[in-house]
Amino acid sequence: MNIRVGIVGYGNLGKGVQRALPQHPDMALQAIFTRRAIDDIDTGTPHVPVHAVETLPDWRDQLDVLLLCGGSASDLPEQTPRYAALFNVVDSFDNHAQIPSHRQRVDPVARAAQRVAIISAGWDPGLFSLYRLLGEAILPRGETHTFWGEGISQGHSDAIRRVPGVLDARQYTIPNDAALEAARTGDGPPLSPQQRHRRVCYVVAAAGANTADIEQRIVTMPGYFAGYETAVHFVSSEELQRDHSGMPHGGTVIRFGHTGEPRPVAHRLEHALRAGANPDFTASVLIACARAAVRLHREGISGCRTMLDIPPAYLSPRSIDDLIAALL
Amino acid sequence: MNIRVGIVGYGNLGKGVQRALPQHPDMALQAIFTRRAIDDIDTGTPHVPVHAVETLPDWRDQLDVLLLCGGSASDLPEQTPRYAALFNVVDSFDNHAQIPSHRQRVDPVARAAQRVAIISAGWDPGLFSLYRLLGEAILPRGETHTFWGEGISQGHSDAIRRVPGVLDARQYTIPNDAALEAARTGDGPPLSPQQRHRRVCYVVAAAGANTADIEQRIVTMPGYFAGYETAVHFVSSEELQRDHSGMPHGGTVIRFGHTGEPRPVAHRLEHALRAGANPDFTASVLIACARAAVRLHREGISGCRTMLDIPPAYLSPRSIDDLIAALL
Repeated sequence: MNIRVGIVGYGNLGKGVQRALPQHPDMALQAIFTRRAIDDIDTGTPHVPVHAVETLPDWRDQLDVLLLCGGSASDLPEQTPRYAALFNVVDSFDNHAQIPSHRQRVDPVARAAQRVAIISAGWDPGLFSLYRLLGEAILPRGETHTFWGEGISQGHSDAIRRVPGVLDARQYTIPNDAALEAARTGDGPPLSPQQRHRRVCYVVAAAGANTADIEQRIVTMPGYFAGYETAVHFVSSEELQRDHSGMPHGGTVIRFGHTGEPRPVAHRLEHALRAGANPDFTASVLIACARAAVRLHREGISGCRTMLDIPPAYLSPRSIDDLIAALL
Repeated sequence: MNIRVGIVGYGNLGKGVQRALPQHPDMALQAIFTRRAIDDIDTGTPHVPVHAVETLPDWRDQLDVLLLCGGSASDLPEQTPRYAALFNVVDSFDNHAQIPSHRQRVDPVARAAQRVAIISAGWDPGLFSLYRLLGEAILPRGETHTFWGEGISQGHSDAIRRVPGVLDARQYTIPNDAALEAARTGDGPPLSPQQRHRRVCYVVAAAGANTADIEQRIVTMPGYFAGYETAVHFVSSEELQRDHSGMPHGGTVIRFGHTGEPRPVAHRLEHALRAGANPDFTASVLIACARAAVRLHREGISGCRTMLDIPPAYLSPRSIDDLIAALL
């Protein structure tokens, strides 16, 4: 099977797809589509053409699936329904509260076009959602705990950069060791996000800025840092670039549950991700979902799906006979 | 949804299903079926009737799904095709090499009867197979490492009991810490099962037996202990009963992979199970698969499936709308 892929949007995630695709021998990148001026885009390779998104309708017969790599705030709510009318598509829409309404907008369009749209793919939402489903389906009496990190949080880094006197910043979200251990052993009450995580910030201050004031503004920032154990380290621009320019991330989903009456027996499932680069790993999940979208489409299935309602075998290039013989 | 369940076979796994079912409010145990004399069976509760397996055809309209809890050596190869002609069924057939031929025997029967048969459910094969699939589909360039333990291995415990002079024994399979760490960091070559695990044996010797001779026979036993780091501890019958009568087990599936050219970035997925009682956890997976079998059947689907080719949402009692709103 050869799957012809188009990337829409050439930010961190689109570049991650470009880096991850060569690991998938059944997939071939045909073109990158952008809203920016085409001449401004350097893909690092002459083999991948860049086109304006307006030309996409001309590519209907030349692409099997589109990977939509825009943002959830404004790009995907508009792009996913639009392109699901023309192509099989995969997106990483991650505004949790709005996923049901996003799905309701995408599903009728994809059905009418007899295309498959897989939404909210990635690691959370996506793979971690699947882990949460498995945990509660197998061990219904229990608790699910999701931890994020250790890794760079883009939103929190941006929030620090908006503090007066800050030139640049990176923020690491780190699981609290005691909270992780409590989740593993089923001890204690459910914990809030503030109790499950701590935050470590590396900040470049402007010359002459009041660092005590900056630190105070960060640790008390509502919605981002207030209530969290937060450490602030001031570093030079060079140190930030040298030591904190990667985009590692990850997380852990723990299900702790019981079986048995009258003497309960405890069981634990623990699923952990360490991604060396967040965009590359998210892209890798999107690529597996792109394969599933094409395989479902070729079987005559249409509509909006998620990682929760795709048979996992469709994520793999191998046949079900092969998977059963090799992995079951 | 109310799902009426029958258990076939009342050994460790059948009892595990009985203990785990009360955690699943959508399922109700209707009856246990056995080949043994009915009067010999004590289910510990007057609410669960015990019947002879020969009466099963009379129960066609009173059961939605049968959980087949016999052994893979001789019970399931005969029982699964037989009962798939009458019921939706789930088994835990775990003879890896023979799963494809088992599937080929079950599938046509289930299709002809318009029933769903889910085979080889449990944690390995089953949940761990799904983890292996996810790892290689998302990170195709990499290595998968499966570790078993720490936990009691029934087959190895039985093998020790066959050594002359041994009255009773329990054997723990334990992952080798250095091998686990190497898998996590992607260091070193792939390791053999002997390098990935060590074995710890607790043995009750007969009065006057030559324990040095017993130990020598154990550690050199081909196919079971030869080549492994094996420790043998002689204990009293009381100590064995007091400290080693549980059936804990578990394991870890690690996928270590890379993305990116020319500078590869490393990613790791790690999935770990700690089951307080192996039969109870295996039973919990079978129960989730029983739910999936019934839901697939009610949608008009038939034939033989595995955990690799069921949409995960079918394992849950919740609707897909509910799952997406709550977990995605």
